[in-house]
Parts: sequence; C-alpha cells; structure tokens
Amino acid sequence: MTKKNAKHGLFISFEGVEGAGKTTNIEYIAEKIEASGQEILLTREPGGTDLGEAIRELLISKEFPEMHSTTELLLMFAARAEHLHRKIIPSLEQGRWVLCDRFTDATYAYQGAGRDIDLQNIQTLENLVQGTLRPDYTFLFDIDADIGLARAKNRGETDRFEQQHLDFFNRVRSAYLKMAEENPQRYRIVNAQYDLQTVQKQIDTLLGQIIQ
Amino acid sequence: MTKKNAKHGLFISFEGVEGAGKTTNIEYIAEKIEASGQEILLTREPGGTDLGEAIRELLISKEFPEMHSTTELLLMFAARAEHLHRKIIPSLEQGRWVLCDRFTDATYAYQGAGRDIDLQNIQTLENLVQGTLRPDYTFLFDIDADIGLARAKNRGETDRFEQQHLDFFNRVRSAYLKMAEENPQRYRIVNAQYDLQTVQKQIDTLLGQIIQ
Ligand SMILES: Nc1ncnc2c1ncn2[C@@H]1O[C@H](COP(=O)(O)OP(=O)(O)OP(=O)(O)O)[C@@H](O)[C@H]1O
Ligand SMILES: Nc1ncnc2c1ncn2[C@@H]1O[C@H](COP(=O)(O)OP(=O)(O)OP(=O)(O)O)[C@@H](O)[C@H]1O
Ligand SMILES: [Mg+2]
Ligand SMILES: [Mg+2]
Repeated sequence: MTKKNAKHGLFISFEGVEGAGKTTNIEYIAEKIEASGQEILLTREPGGTDLGEAIRELLISKEFPEMHSTTELLLMFAARAEHLHRKIIPSLEQGRWVLCDRFTDATYAYQGAGRDIDLQNIQTLENLVQGTLRPDYTFLFDIDADIGLARAKNRGETDRFEQQHLDFFNRVRSAYLKMAEENPQRYRIVNAQYDLQTVQKQIDTLLGQIIQ
Repeated sequence: MTKKNAKHGLFISFEGVEGAGKTTNIEYIAEKIEASGQEILLTREPGGTDLGEAIRELLISKEFPEMHSTTELLLMFAARAEHLHRKIIPSLEQGRWVLCDRFTDATYAYQGAGRDIDLQNIQTLENLVQGTLRPDYTFLFDIDADIGLARAKNRGETDRFEQQHLDFFNRVRSAYLKMAEENPQRYRIVNAQYDLQTVQKQIDTLLGQIIQ
C-alpha cells in the first residue's frame, strides 16, 4: 500500500490572543464540519499526547523558574513532534480533518514576538519537526488585546499570562496580523471584537468556502 | 565588564562505548588536573541540572515506549541546552576546566550511527544549541565493543543497553573512530583495551601535552 493514494484530511489551526474566542468557536466549527459528514480530530497545543502533557508540566512547573529560553523552545517542539507524529499526521492520513487550538504560529507570536526568542531558531525547529507540513488553513481571531484579556478575566480564571504587560499582548497581536498578511492563502481573519452571533456569521461565510 | 577578558577554562569531553573506562578514568584525570592547581567542574550527560534530570526521566521512562525519534532528539538537546547555559558555560567563564562524561558526540554515535537518526538533524540542533561551542579536547576510550560490554557486565549492572545487539555497539565504536579521524586537533585516542596501569600511562602522556 503506497501513501500516494491515502486520503488526506485538512489541517486547520486556530490562533489569537487570550480571550479572542478560539476555544468557544472551535467547538462551533467542529459541529458544523461534523454535520457535513466529515470526521474530525479536535486537539490543542501544547499537549495533545501523554508525553506532550508531561512536557507541558515541565514547561509550566514552578520548579524551574530559571529555564533557559532555548531549553523552553526545544521542549515546546519536542511536545509538538510527538503530537504531530502520533496524532495529527495519522489522523490526516485517515482522512480526518484536524482542528488544532493553537499551533506553531503561536510559538512565533508568543515566544518570538512576545518574548524576543530568535525567529531564526523557531524557523529551524519548524522545518526540522514539520518538514513541509503546515496547516492548510489558519483562523485568526483578531481582537484588541485589552478586550480579549477582559473577556478572559470575566471567564473567572486567573492564570500566569495575566502577569504579562498589555504591551506583550499587543506585540503578539501584531505578529499574528503580520503572519496573516504574509500568508494570505492560508489565513482567514475573523474580526472577533463583535458579539458572538456576528462572529459566527463571519465564520459561516469563511467555512462555506472550505466545506464543499 | 566585558566578556572579552573573561578567563576561559578548557572544555574536555570523554567518549567511548559501554565499559570503555570513561567514568573510571575521568576521576583519575580530575585528580591530576586539580593537583596542578586548576579548578574543575566534573559533570555528565544526559542530566547535569535538575531540569536535565527531569528530562532524562522522561527519556528513560517506560511510560512512553512509542516516543518518536525526533521527540527523543529534541528532549536530549533540551537537557543539553540547560546544562550548557546554566552550568558548563558559566563554569568555563569562571576559568574552570569542565570535564564532561559524554557530550554531543555521543548523540552522533548512539542516536546517529547506532539508531540511524538523521545526522543532518543532529547537526542542526548542535548548531542551534551550541553555536560554535565545541569541546576543546575529546578523550576517546577506544575498545572492542565486546570487551567493553564484558567489563560493564562484570561491574554487576544489568541495564537496558545490554539488550542492544553487538552490531549496534560496533556501529557506535566506528562512528567514534570516524569523528576522531575527522577532528584530529580535538580528539585524543586512548587505547582502552589494556590493563588500567597501561591505560593511565597513555593518559599521563596525553595530559602532559595539555596541562602547562
Ligand atoms: N464574541 C464574543 N463576545 C463576547 N464574549 C465572548 C465572545 N467569544 C467568546 N466570548 C467569551 O470570552 C471568553 C473567552 O473566550 P474563549 O475561552 O473562547 O477564548 P480563547 O481565545 O480560547 O482564550 P484563551 O487563549 O485564554 O484560551 C469566554 O468566557 C467566552 O464565553
Ligand atoms: N583498563 C581496564 N582494565 C580492566 N577493567 C577496567 C579498565 N578500566 C575500567 N575497568 C573496569 O571496567 C568497568 C567499566 O568501567 P567504567 O565504568 O569506567 O566504564 P564506562 O566507560 O564509564 O562505562 P559506561 O559507558 O557504562 O558508563 C568497571 O568495573 C571498571 O572498574
Ligand atoms: Mg482557549
Ligand atoms: Mg560511565
């Protein structure tokens, strides 16, 4: 059996700053796609596998506050390698569509633009781990960082990201918009500042162009 | 304070197949160097830091038998990045000599030649993590793989490496000899098949050329 004739699913990632609505809308999109008869894998990063979750524990643990940024980057891509090879690629080969809540562009936005990790190193690891594999589509939920953060706070969580300055999230948002500009074929921008109904109307239009 | 005038120690790695005598002789060498008045850091890989040891646990844990080879390689270099940036480089900058029981050449020999992981990927990660930093000297304890394995068995341990076929260790030994041939300035080959006294006589001669 050659892989040549393997049915390939679409790989769709979801990006945007905290509180933009990724997790809310990925569920909505998953239902729409399943309703069209298409099987899906709904997953998220970092994590996605048992080993990935164990690596995630090291990344967020308070035991290693002095972790070097290169170490952090390698751990992120180690979790991603496992996720890709053990879950994402096999699912795509089975013909499933893979919906992933954050993927490599989040590394460019958060570690690269946010924390100033060398973009060249991120690119090197992206090529090493993914080869030529990239998402077919990336939905960017674009929103003013302060509105997104306010929504995330309303959600009642307190997490380590709230310690970052607004300036950090502004850099993250700008990085996402720049990637969207540079990859117009792949990116679909959702203006996420509106009420949910208006946001989902935009999603319906965009999905209509993807689901046949 | 510029780094330009920082006193730099020597970085010496120790390589060779199981039972070749690395751990036995690194102690002997450490004593000789300290007797010359030189401060040292004696360390080993994988590991060397708390986070490195935690990563080592993931690498050897039986929980993840299906770990992808790319994930394994990234985890190894994640531990190495932490070791380098948090222990090895600061020690060298303080003027210490760093003696490291195995380093990146073990990744080339074991993962590359032994397990057939793409050498190009190892090289990419070596450059990303180490920049231009390489050991100043590498002592290769060269021995027939079957003699080394017999010694390791005599030591009374039973470890997971004994499951590998002799062929695996022959490939590892050949890879080390090839690296020695390609890096004659850096490599110092010790013929490790002889009795300890004869081995240490060779070491004395080689060290005499390094310690002023
Ligand atoms: N269009 C919207 N208008 C108002 N509130 C919204 C809208 N979309 C989502 N929310 C609410 O905002 C909060 C954040 O949404 P959600 O968790 O989906 O964001 P997220 O992008 O996944 O955030 P994170 O990056 O923190 O995971 C939730 O409480 C959600 O109900
Ligand atoms: N020249 C020698 N002749 C005989 N036995 C030796 C010699 N050198 C070391 N040994 C013994 O061989 C065993 C293996 O030596 P050692 O632990 O130093 O090897 P190693 O290279 O560190 O192995 P490993 O890769 O498994 O850590 C020990 O029991 C040691 O005492
Ligand atoms: Mg979310
Ligand atoms: Mg040893």
